[in-house]
Amino acid sequence: MAKPARTAITPTRSQDYPEWYQQVVRAADLAENSPVRGCMVIKPWGYTLWEKMQRALDEKFKDTGHVNAYFPLFIPKSYLEKEAQHVEGFAKECAVVTHSRLELNDEGKLVPAAPLEEPLIVRPTSETIIGEMYAKWVQSYRDLPVLINQWANVVRWEMRTRLFLRTAEFLWQEGHTAHATEAEAWEETRKMLGVYADFAENYMAMPVWQGEKTAGERFPGAVSTLCIEAMMQDRKALQAGTSHFLGQNFAKASGIQFQSEQGQLEYAWTTSWGVSTRLVGGLVMTHSDDDGLIAPPRLAPLHVVILPVLIKEESRAEVLEYCHKLREELRNVWWHDQKLDVHIDDRDLRGGDKMWQWVKKGVPLRVEVGPRDIAKDSLFVGRRDTGEKGPVPRAEFVATIGERLDEIQQNLLNRARAFRDEHTHVINSEQDFYDFFTPKNQEEPEIHGGFALAHWNGDESITERIQQDLKVTVRCIPFEDNPEPGTCIFTGQPSKQRVVWAKSY
Amino acid sequence: MAKPARTAITPTRSQDYPEWYQQVVRAADLAENSPVRGCMVIKPWGYTLWEKMQRALDEKFKDTGHVNAYFPLFIPKSYLEKEAQHVEGFAKECAVVTHSRLELNDEGKLVPAAPLEEPLIVRPTSETIIGEMYAKWVQSYRDLPVLINQWANVVRWEMRTRLFLRTAEFLWQEGHTAHATEAEAWEETRKMLGVYADFAENYMAMPVWQGEKTAGERFPGAVSTLCIEAMMQDRKALQAGTSHFLGQNFAKASGIQFQSEQGQLEYAWTTSWGVSTRLVGGLVMTHSDDDGLIAPPRLAPLHVVILPVLIKEESRAEVLEYCHKLREELRNVWWHDQKLDVHIDDRDLRGGDKMWQWVKKGVPLRVEVGPRDIAKDSLFVGRRDTGEKGPVPRAEFVATIGERLDEIQQNLLNRARAFRDEHTHVINSEQDFYDFFTPKNQEEPEIHGGFALAHWNGDESITERIQQDLKVTVRCIPFEDNPEPGTCIFTGQPSKQRVVWAKSY
Repeated sequence: MAKPARTAITPTRSQDYPEWYQQVVRAADLAENSPVRGCMVIKPWGYTLWEKMQRALDEKFKDTGHVNAYFPLFIPKSYLEKEAQHVEGFAKECAVVTHSRLELNDEGKLVPAAPLEEPLIVRPTSETIIGEMYAKWVQSYRDLPVLINQWANVVRWEMRTRLFLRTAEFLWQEGHTAHATEAEAWEETRKMLGVYADFAENYMAMPVWQGEKTAGERFPGAVSTLCIEAMMQDRKALQAGTSHFLGQNFAKASGIQFQSEQGQLEYAWTTSWGVSTRLVGGLVMTHSDDDGLIAPPRLAPLHVVILPVLIKEESRAEVLEYCHKLREELRNVWWHDQKLDVHIDDRDLRGGDKMWQWVKKGVPLRVEVGPRDIAKDSLFVGRRDTGEKGPVPRAEFVATIGERLDEIQQNLLNRARAFRDEHTHVINSEQDFYDFFTPKNQEEPEIHGGFALAHWNGDESITERIQQDLKVTVRCIPFEDNPEPGTCIFTGQPSKQRVVWAKSY
Repeated sequence: MAKPARTAITPTRSQDYPEWYQQVVRAADLAENSPVRGCMVIKPWGYTLWEKMQRALDEKFKDTGHVNAYFPLFIPKSYLEKEAQHVEGFAKECAVVTHSRLELNDEGKLVPAAPLEEPLIVRPTSETIIGEMYAKWVQSYRDLPVLINQWANVVRWEMRTRLFLRTAEFLWQEGHTAHATEAEAWEETRKMLGVYADFAENYMAMPVWQGEKTAGERFPGAVSTLCIEAMMQDRKALQAGTSHFLGQNFAKASGIQFQSEQGQLEYAWTTSWGVSTRLVGGLVMTHSDDDGLIAPPRLAPLHVVILPVLIKEESRAEVLEYCHKLREELRNVWWHDQKLDVHIDDRDLRGGDKMWQWVKKGVPLRVEVGPRDIAKDSLFVGRRDTGEKGPVPRAEFVATIGERLDEIQQNLLNRARAFRDEHTHVINSEQDFYDFFTPKNQEEPEIHGGFALAHWNGDESITERIQQDLKVTVRCIPFEDNPEPGTCIFTGQPSKQRVVWAKSY
């Protein structure tokens, strides 16, 4: 193994990708495990990423006619049982509230008291409780569509957890809509997947495949699940958002019925769609390097950090004043309908230590200002994505800050797309398929394979075998305007189109 | 009893205030009870009020140096037990998670399975779990202050619930800060109370008393609780926000220790402060009238609703086009750093029905536009707070919209302040005190009394007796620059200053 260059993060991606991820999250101070099993603490830097995601998505939801509301955290057990597949999907991993009080027992120990008549489940998702309300609200076709989104916490009692990617409690949004016709509900399902894809590419700078899940990977109770799938730098797939066409399954389970324009009593057609704090993990794994986080400017907690060089006491006041003026100039720049977020780090720390902290936190642009720079009215600018550094006249920097940020954003997307394309292979035989997903190098066991585009005849027994052999699954049946038919590489039978295979999170 | 004028809400405030409140909430479509005991569904119109409150408060928190983060929903039982008063305050009403799975039993019924080693409490407040994290994060005085806020849901198993005012689950923010010195923590406690008071008066148009709680009304575990108290239209007090100085109690319970600048190991000083969706109830009860909600413009879900008069088919297109142009003009107006929220209601409903829906929803300004108005380039404007109606030239309306909204905002505050002052009485004898809080008119049993400013010597046995006799408590010991000493009206003993007494929510 070649001697690695010195990096801010140990180990590097190629040495140990899962551990690299944990270290990037730690070094950027995004989140950490809490003493409550499986529950994370989202620290301010990580939470700000989530807040910026929320703001951008919320605007898109509102632009597409949705409003926010809030439904109960608890779901009565009997509600979960109304949809057979749904309860099967979630019963195995749910937090059950059984008591409403703690009381001292005879031994002086505080124990659960006042048992509930019916246990309550901490929501793993809200189709059933929201369906119950929609059944009350919807009487006539005039009450449709119902287009509601909820920002909330949910709990799924996962055994193996990983910060952001899989946690027992996570934050998410869940859209729940009800429509008068199947066609409208299908349109909504596709539209919201499009919103997610647009957000992933244009805000997260994370290219995605859009497509449909196979039956085995569907949301419990859905007729069809659409998804966006992104490639991480270990070439595994991350399911980054899902949009479910629920048909009339949940409407029947909850009794969402309406009088149609023709006067008939019909069941509504419903959808649900969601993205979660998992996206923060996806953002980290798409862009970060061996020096830590790289935040795409559209979602970066800070756009610019200003680092005053405060070595000499006599120039201290002048340098700080110059920095404050610069910050005000930058803060007044509007970029994509937002004011820029700019911070001056004037802590008493060694310049190098300070700089590396901001490198690890992924701030797109770092600006160092010392007495000599001020003399030339110039700044020493460091760009996080490319590592480029050099002097830029202050006026030019302020005038072009928006373009610089756009360029960084575009570069990150281009880079991620090139990486994904490089590791996406058209595969035409079972042997090539097995080779593709089998590590060649025992020293780098984690990084190999990628996305395989291969024909498959739809037989679920094949996918089960492939999952057992290789831990590889069909990530999606991609949307294609002109799907090209072919021959299943596993069975030799006809296939309608190539599907996307990968290992996944 | 006089024959009441016809009103949109039945009963009126004077007939049955609690029921009037429920009906206003229902008519404005703000929230409703869910099938989960004590948990409400916050509907889109109510949630938008909360979102606007969140945005305004969040900005104020950030302006005062705070950042947001997120901590686990669950608190291990042993954490709650660390602070003796704290656990006593919350153990009686908490949701206890005891299992992590549902499983079919022998009778084919789904029952809780996989019991947890230690029960988890759904957070009623987060001092203990956040304290645990701060103990890890804080090592040195350089790590202080920690200034973090969390937006979250919390659960307190209340037996008697009321939409927004008291619900088992509610949404809130909880600030949690840690400081190196007692003085700093006190400053923070007072500063955040000031933020709440400013928000209440300038956004909610709800005047408040600021002061300190008596020992009996303190937050469990706090050294001191500061609060803002508002008067509702039934003259009862609503505690609208609290800011707690926690001293070193929670730092000791959680072990938040740091190396001081002098090298000594010391416990941090902590604070916590919160407001909740209860504020939505307070807003409703402060301003609404017998025709429904009146939303203060700074928080109104919509500032202006445009009601096209679409009776004649031949003018329909022209009227709608005019309305859309008007909406665009208004939407481009900036008012207090926000764009205006403007909606065109073009539903096929009778004009009167439509108008009354918006009256009940409390939109500050309604604008009717018909062909005859268009001919004069004029609008028919209705103002929700005063009921004034009349024609206004379009250009003038657009040019003065900001001033109109400011005027409405100011009028609501003035009106609420006048009401509060009218029903705030200086009381100098026990007899007058009992008279003040005893209903005179059996037909209007609910609305009487108000705020009594009376001297009290601080004896908690007095407050217990008063609470039993009259259901009246000390709402706060108000902040006074020059507190005027006097004689306790109950004991004849010396009193440092007058305190605020009232019935309360």
